[in-house]
Amino acid sequence: MSMSKIENHIKGKRDEYLDLLFTFLRQKSISAQNVGMEEACILLQEIMEGMGIKTQLLPTKGHPVVYGEIMNDPSNFTLLIYGHYDVQPADPLEEWDSPPFEPTIRNGKIYCRGAGDNKGQLMAQLLAIKSYQEVIGDLPINIKFVFEGEEESGSPNLASFVEENKDLLKADLVYTSDGPMHESGAPFVLLGVRGMLYVELTAKGGEWDNHSGNKGNIVPNPAWKLVELLNTMKDSDDKILIKGFYDDLRIPTEKELELISTLPFDAKLLGEQIGYKGFDMTAEEYYRKLTLEPTINIAGFHSGYGGEGSKTIIPATAKLKMDMRLVVDQDPEDIYEKFQKHVAKYAPDVEVTCHSMMKPSRTPSDSKVVETIKQAVEKAYKQPPILQPSLGGSLPDYVWTQILGVPSVIVPYANFDEANHSPNENIGIENFFNGILCTCHVIEELAGFEGN
Amino acid sequence: MSMSKIENHIKGKRDEYLDLLFTFLRQKSISAQNVGMEEACILLQEIMEGMGIKTQLLPTKGHPVVYGEIMNDPSNFTLLIYGHYDVQPADPLEEWDSPPFEPTIRNGKIYCRGAGDNKGQLMAQLLAIKSYQEVIGDLPINIKFVFEGEEESGSPNLASFVEENKDLLKADLVYTSDGPMHESGAPFVLLGVRGMLYVELTAKGGEWDNHSGNKGNIVPNPAWKLVELLNTMKDSDDKILIKGFYDDLRIPTEKELELISTLPFDAKLLGEQIGYKGFDMTAEEYYRKLTLEPTINIAGFHSGYGGEGSKTIIPATAKLKMDMRLVVDQDPEDIYEKFQKHVAKYAPDVEVTCHSMMKPSRTPSDSKVVETIKQAVEKAYKQPPILQPSLGGSLPDYVWTQILGVPSVIVPYANFDEANHSPNENIGIENFFNGILCTCHVIEELAGFEGN
Repeated sequence: MSMSKIENHIKGKRDEYLDLLFTFLRQKSISAQNVGMEEACILLQEIMEGMGIKTQLLPTKGHPVVYGEIMNDPSNFTLLIYGHYDVQPADPLEEWDSPPFEPTIRNGKIYCRGAGDNKGQLMAQLLAIKSYQEVIGDLPINIKFVFEGEEESGSPNLASFVEENKDLLKADLVYTSDGPMHESGAPFVLLGVRGMLYVELTAKGGEWDNHSGNKGNIVPNPAWKLVELLNTMKDSDDKILIKGFYDDLRIPTEKELELISTLPFDAKLLGEQIGYKGFDMTAEEYYRKLTLEPTINIAGFHSGYGGEGSKTIIPATAKLKMDMRLVVDQDPEDIYEKFQKHVAKYAPDVEVTCHSMMKPSRTPSDSKVVETIKQAVEKAYKQPPILQPSLGGSLPDYVWTQILGVPSVIVPYANFDEANHSPNENIGIENFFNGILCTCHVIEELAGFEGN
Repeated sequence: MSMSKIENHIKGKRDEYLDLLFTFLRQKSISAQNVGMEEACILLQEIMEGMGIKTQLLPTKGHPVVYGEIMNDPSNFTLLIYGHYDVQPADPLEEWDSPPFEPTIRNGKIYCRGAGDNKGQLMAQLLAIKSYQEVIGDLPINIKFVFEGEEESGSPNLASFVEENKDLLKADLVYTSDGPMHESGAPFVLLGVRGMLYVELTAKGGEWDNHSGNKGNIVPNPAWKLVELLNTMKDSDDKILIKGFYDDLRIPTEKELELISTLPFDAKLLGEQIGYKGFDMTAEEYYRKLTLEPTINIAGFHSGYGGEGSKTIIPATAKLKMDMRLVVDQDPEDIYEKFQKHVAKYAPDVEVTCHSMMKPSRTPSDSKVVETIKQAVEKAYKQPPILQPSLGGSLPDYVWTQILGVPSVIVPYANFDEANHSPNENIGIENFFNGILCTCHVIEELAGFEGN
């Protein structure tokens, strides 16, 4: 009953809510380039204070965290909402159909950098608080907000921030709305992420490019060196051959395996979306590989001549960029050590450096709070959400499950084609308003949560 | 006796001869850009006619051949001199220390595009004819000249030209002065070249780059595909695993093996010249690999992200450029067929195209005419030449040995650091004059040649 009142209230506030989102979107906040970050913090604080949220700017080694809370009764359930106010750079500018920092409505979508990732989803959560308070009154749960300013730069300071503020951030559940919904349009409840280890390898031959005829089979070829090294890392069945790589891989629970066997799956549609016509996995294989198995990927391999026609050289250098997606309980530091040992054994003169590490995370699918969130999402979207043990990609979700030590769920509000990180980023107008409603349902359901 | 007269004569003509070379050098003749080609042909014809050489312009599908001959007595030995009047483009212009088409003398060298490759060496041969005639009188041998205009573009029409003009070009020996002398400063007599097959491979995964997390181990990675394919082509001992690759490889003769064991060799100097401090081959291994064994080389491998930092993608495409240096009697067409079969077997969806093919060549080291050339070169340089079974690199030498069916020797006149194809190309002034003298000795020695 109260939810339909809220739904009507939101309908009456469409223009006001869109205005507020547009104001927030117009404020640039490109963390990588340090553009507009301070102004964005202040604006966000003002918006939150206007909703009765007590805020403070908490410093980190980088851009500050905008922290907020509504603590009506310490004995209530406490929900921590995580999001980020920073956005990706807008380039390539020429590929935008409207100015990247001027929100523009076309075909039922709001186009703007940050519309989907993450300002639209963050604002939907704030407007849910506002709507709930305006219609029902005081919140029946406590809410804490952690909006960081460095997610698009890999959240380098989030882990230490959480470590240093454990008491302040104490909560019963962490809730993140980021990324897109399922390609079918169905909502997601994601119970974790894969971690990541990103490395770069450099192989050297001669000090300069040599003539492949006059010096052929005399000067070692660094590209061959990397090819031979790569070949020791993975067999043709994609089994990773680095010693100990699988040691800490968590064996999926019955429940998790059961989960993935029931997930919706349209191989043809998926093949089109990834641009690979030869795609022919079964649902079980697809979700198992994407959520329960690690990868070792060549993200870039560059050596020698790449222009038109031919050039006959032995390249001086070959460079390789690789990312490994890790699954609980693989630890990127441990995997990096094993990776370095592997290279030292098979190609000792190849140089290895590490670009970034992120731990994987997983919240148990049989925890009671997950069931509650599932029900809330089902009520909001009038269809059961897709419960997936893990996202294929990586987010700093481990800071909640491992450092703060609480369960964490990810419920994306954006449309599948939100084009995050790309030109013409957008969020569907209905996705935005459904997101507001969904957070209200989450508040309502958690209010009645009885504990595990 | 007569040779010392010629030597004195050349000394007296230094300014006149340099003037003539400079005039020829100033005339641009960039075949790849079709700059100055017609003017260069006419100028070269005029110079040759001025020396009593009967010339004609012979058309090809590309730039014409400047053909010339002096046929005093059909029963005399006939020498065919091959060279080219075209030059490489001069860029990067900013790296030249003097204008690339204005011959400039510094440190005993003439700097100009084409100075070493090949106008200086070509002119040395013509001036030898002039000197010989002025001092001694009529030539004791017949001489034919084939100066082509497309060597710097890979001689695409030379084979068909020779095929169509077999009668006209009939000769007892082909003589080429191109490339540099040995790094020690000693003269070379090269008895052939390695051939070449240059291919490009393209592997595809998805139609566009995919996210390595959300699509990792779902979309095939084309870089891994090429890595796995490459690994089937060569073992870690550099043995090429393409079926039938070695079938037609000629077993070196005792004489050839003996030859390479006596060649001068300075591992430290060589390591410095190729920019590879780890170089530690023996002389025998070095020359065997460089002249008697084929290669399979990665000239370029490009896939995915190559910029600063990290980008987490599964590349859509991976491209590979490879050149194989072939040794007599490997036929590039046959090897290309075997290569295609290999790819079709191990990676059937990888696309293969051929950029260029050139056959290897070899003139037997025990042929009597080689002995004669060796003596002539030794007299000119007052030290025995380095007789090498093959050049590591490739030249269209097979058109003489295989199509015309005559022995062929390559006797470079330029200094080791001629910087051909690079900025500040040059020829040492003494290299130029020694080249004139060397051709005179060759004429003199061949006059007394008694046949095999």
